[in-house]
Amino acid sequence: MHDDVLTRLTAALGDAVVTSGPALDAVREDRSGWVSEHPALAVVHAASVDDVQQVLRLANETRTPVVPRGAGTGLAGGALASRGAIVLDLTRMNRILELDDVDELAVVEAGVLNGDLDRAARERGLWYAPDPASRAISSIGGNIATNAGGLLCAKYGVTRESVLGLAVVLADGTLLRTGHRTVKGVTGYDLTALLTGSEGTLGVIVEATVRLRPVVAGETHTVAAAFPDVEAAGVAAAGVAAARIRPALLELIDAVGLGRVAEFLGPDELAGTPIADLAPGETFLLAQTDAGDAAAEADVIARVFAEAGGRVTRSTDAATGERLLGIRRAMHPALASRGKVLIEDVAVPRSRLPQMFRAIAEIGERYGVEIPTLAHAGDGNLHPNFVFEGDDVPDHVWAAADEMFRAAVRLGGTLTGEHGVGLLKRRWLAEELGDASVELQRRIKQVFDPAGLLNPGVMFEPAPGTAR
Amino acid sequence: MHDDVLTRLTAALGDAVVTSGPALDAVREDRSGWVSEHPALAVVHAASVDDVQQVLRLANETRTPVVPRGAGTGLAGGALASRGAIVLDLTRMNRILELDDVDELAVVEAGVLNGDLDRAARERGLWYAPDPASRAISSIGGNIATNAGGLLCAKYGVTRESVLGLAVVLADGTLLRTGHRTVKGVTGYDLTALLTGSEGTLGVIVEATVRLRPVVAGETHTVAAAFPDVEAAGVAAAGVAAARIRPALLELIDAVGLGRVAEFLGPDELAGTPIADLAPGETFLLAQTDAGDAAAEADVIARVFAEAGGRVTRSTDAATGERLLGIRRAMHPALASRGKVLIEDVAVPRSRLPQMFRAIAEIGERYGVEIPTLAHAGDGNLHPNFVFEGDDVPDHVWAAADEMFRAAVRLGGTLTGEHGVGLLKRRWLAEELGDASVELQRRIKQVFDPAGLLNPGVMFEPAPGTAR
Repeated sequence: MHDDVLTRLTAALGDAVVTSGPALDAVREDRSGWVSEHPALAVVHAASVDDVQQVLRLANETRTPVVPRGAGTGLAGGALASRGAIVLDLTRMNRILELDDVDELAVVEAGVLNGDLDRAARERGLWYAPDPASRAISSIGGNIATNAGGLLCAKYGVTRESVLGLAVVLADGTLLRTGHRTVKGVTGYDLTALLTGSEGTLGVIVEATVRLRPVVAGETHTVAAAFPDVEAAGVAAAGVAAARIRPALLELIDAVGLGRVAEFLGPDELAGTPIADLAPGETFLLAQTDAGDAAAEADVIARVFAEAGGRVTRSTDAATGERLLGIRRAMHPALASRGKVLIEDVAVPRSRLPQMFRAIAEIGERYGVEIPTLAHAGDGNLHPNFVFEGDDVPDHVWAAADEMFRAAVRLGGTLTGEHGVGLLKRRWLAEELGDASVELQRRIKQVFDPAGLLNPGVMFEPAPGTAR
Repeated sequence: MHDDVLTRLTAALGDAVVTSGPALDAVREDRSGWVSEHPALAVVHAASVDDVQQVLRLANETRTPVVPRGAGTGLAGGALASRGAIVLDLTRMNRILELDDVDELAVVEAGVLNGDLDRAARERGLWYAPDPASRAISSIGGNIATNAGGLLCAKYGVTRESVLGLAVVLADGTLLRTGHRTVKGVTGYDLTALLTGSEGTLGVIVEATVRLRPVVAGETHTVAAAFPDVEAAGVAAAGVAAARIRPALLELIDAVGLGRVAEFLGPDELAGTPIADLAPGETFLLAQTDAGDAAAEADVIARVFAEAGGRVTRSTDAATGERLLGIRRAMHPALASRGKVLIEDVAVPRSRLPQMFRAIAEIGERYGVEIPTLAHAGDGNLHPNFVFEGDDVPDHVWAAADEMFRAAVRLGGTLTGEHGVGLLKRRWLAEELGDASVELQRRIKQVFDPAGLLNPGVMFEPAPGTAR
């Protein structure tokens, strides 16, 4: 059976089909640290919509599972090889098909990197707003499949807000086009939004029409501060909201994380920043404001930070701004340099951030796990990083993560703000959504994928007795 | 059968059930001018989620169609009585359940008027951005069911962008909660977005958690101008976009419409405005800018308008701004005062506006129909108004509208930008979406509503041989 699939795949797609070697190993993991137990049957490096349609038709006829995959930067195990599956790699579909600076939109193949699109847009006075931290290395298709967030979301929206339309290959190989080239459009159900964030379980996104925005004019103001503790930083973040300011970004690093970052960057990198002379327990908060209100907003933020006990640095100089933002950007490299982490992604209503930080501290202490935490404080999205030894996540770390998810849901939050469910979080899906919602979603999945071939095991627990 | 339904409805809901009189007549029409041929079996004035669940359970058991209805201000025939159906009126569910000024959100019952929510939010320094022209009289539930647009959408987003979560009663009476109280959240499929714009065909929206925004600080700048013709106004609108400015609103009234408005408002109302001395063929364009860039943006807009041949009036005075915006607001009353119109709602990519205006003029001439047209020029959404005599839309007007839709779709546009499909536009659904998409959407409908009881005939053509 598998031989038949491979023979037919190779006959149809030739060299694009890889069945051994490093390419096959590469698709067993993503950036979550999760490694799949089994290799895939094959990796297909699709170069065109037609390639994707051929793979899907063949998979449908032979009942072979297909795992769509972009640049492999996911953090939830949403695009990993599984036994007997074809991994459909879209990274060769990396052409910007159109960049229309009158209608302020681009049409791109799924494999275009987010950063590459943004760069091309900026040459025309436009930019692409969704900014996952991985933007330099992650693909638009993957960003859309996970409805990726980023730092600028509270002000500029998540990926969904920038997707106008999609081209999607369905499970039987049909090409479906959804959405419009217009900002408005309400003809029929919003399939574009339904497919955005569907993690490859409803169809394979091959092309997207995305909205671009005029480059923001004027200076960006950066205000950064170290606070004596996370409570003081929480007061500062709440003060910004209470002043009715929505900064472009507002990022928080807790004391454990900040210690790691300071150690990683070293004194030279930190000279002149608020964490140059870091005291134990100190927490970091960084805001940037832009557009016409930038200066006035930065004034207020600087005052709020200082009143909450912050040691404040403020700048409009681009290099200094980048240097301060570099502290935030160093968080993951700093953690990665010291071993393995389980990166989590809960979100809570902004007002509940202090409670969530207390819950994380308490859970970390009880389970003896260090949990350096980063937060997009503007939108309540936290990334607690569970540090562990060895290759596999130990049971007590899963137990701690389990409690942390429950705490977030209890506070009116969600188990994933921007990374997606993937394989890693599916066990909590029903707990957050409820059985009625999960049942409805499974039936929607069946409409698109009656044979259950698209990314099986992702998002939903597999039926008992099946693999993955 | 019907007697049984009514007996059980009345036993369960008492006075909330109305089976004759003006309340029954009222639900035969909306603001589209469309009047249903048959009265409903009953109108139920639901006052609670429990009422709605009782109605849906009973309807499901007795296989009785249900038409969910808000304030009745729809423009596409999406909530009209039909033979044998229960019209489920939600206007009594009009409580603002929560207004959280820390998390900047509100939880409202479906019948809350858009304008009432906005007013309540403004008392707390916040506002509700989606602004359909009907906002004073239309309900949030109806706005969400149609994914209503408005004037401010190009800058502040359509309704979907403000909906964080929903409570929806499903066809069998189950209460489903979707979404979050957080800005970010990607657990499972985006049912919130799927239900937004589903026009009552997937479930009955009973409650919504919506995002509020900080009130925009500073002055609003208004720039209005009369141009010699629609081409010149088109050049001006394109010039604003080319200057990379996204005004809060940018509204265009063509010559035919402007003539009607001038006649309706009269010379006193128009004194001091650019249309005080209106020459035949002149076209009106109005921009407003807000927030920190408002003054600089208004400078550019005023210059662009003048260079395109506009007779420009500019103001930061709120009263003058309202007076100029009043010209735009007078469009529908002006048309309504002179007889019947079929209000259409196509959208095209912004760059195609001039072509669309030419197509409308050509179609109007060929069919001998006057088509005064209004456009949200910032987002390419046009409202061509087909003027006719008598009570029913004459065949040649439908034929003209038919050509107009096709022209919009040919230009890369859509047949409805913000009003929805309803009964009025379902005949063009497949032409825009394609058969594969419509088939997929019908199957999604079946997942939610297997017996086909929710708003039958809306959005999709009924199966051959069935009513409506």
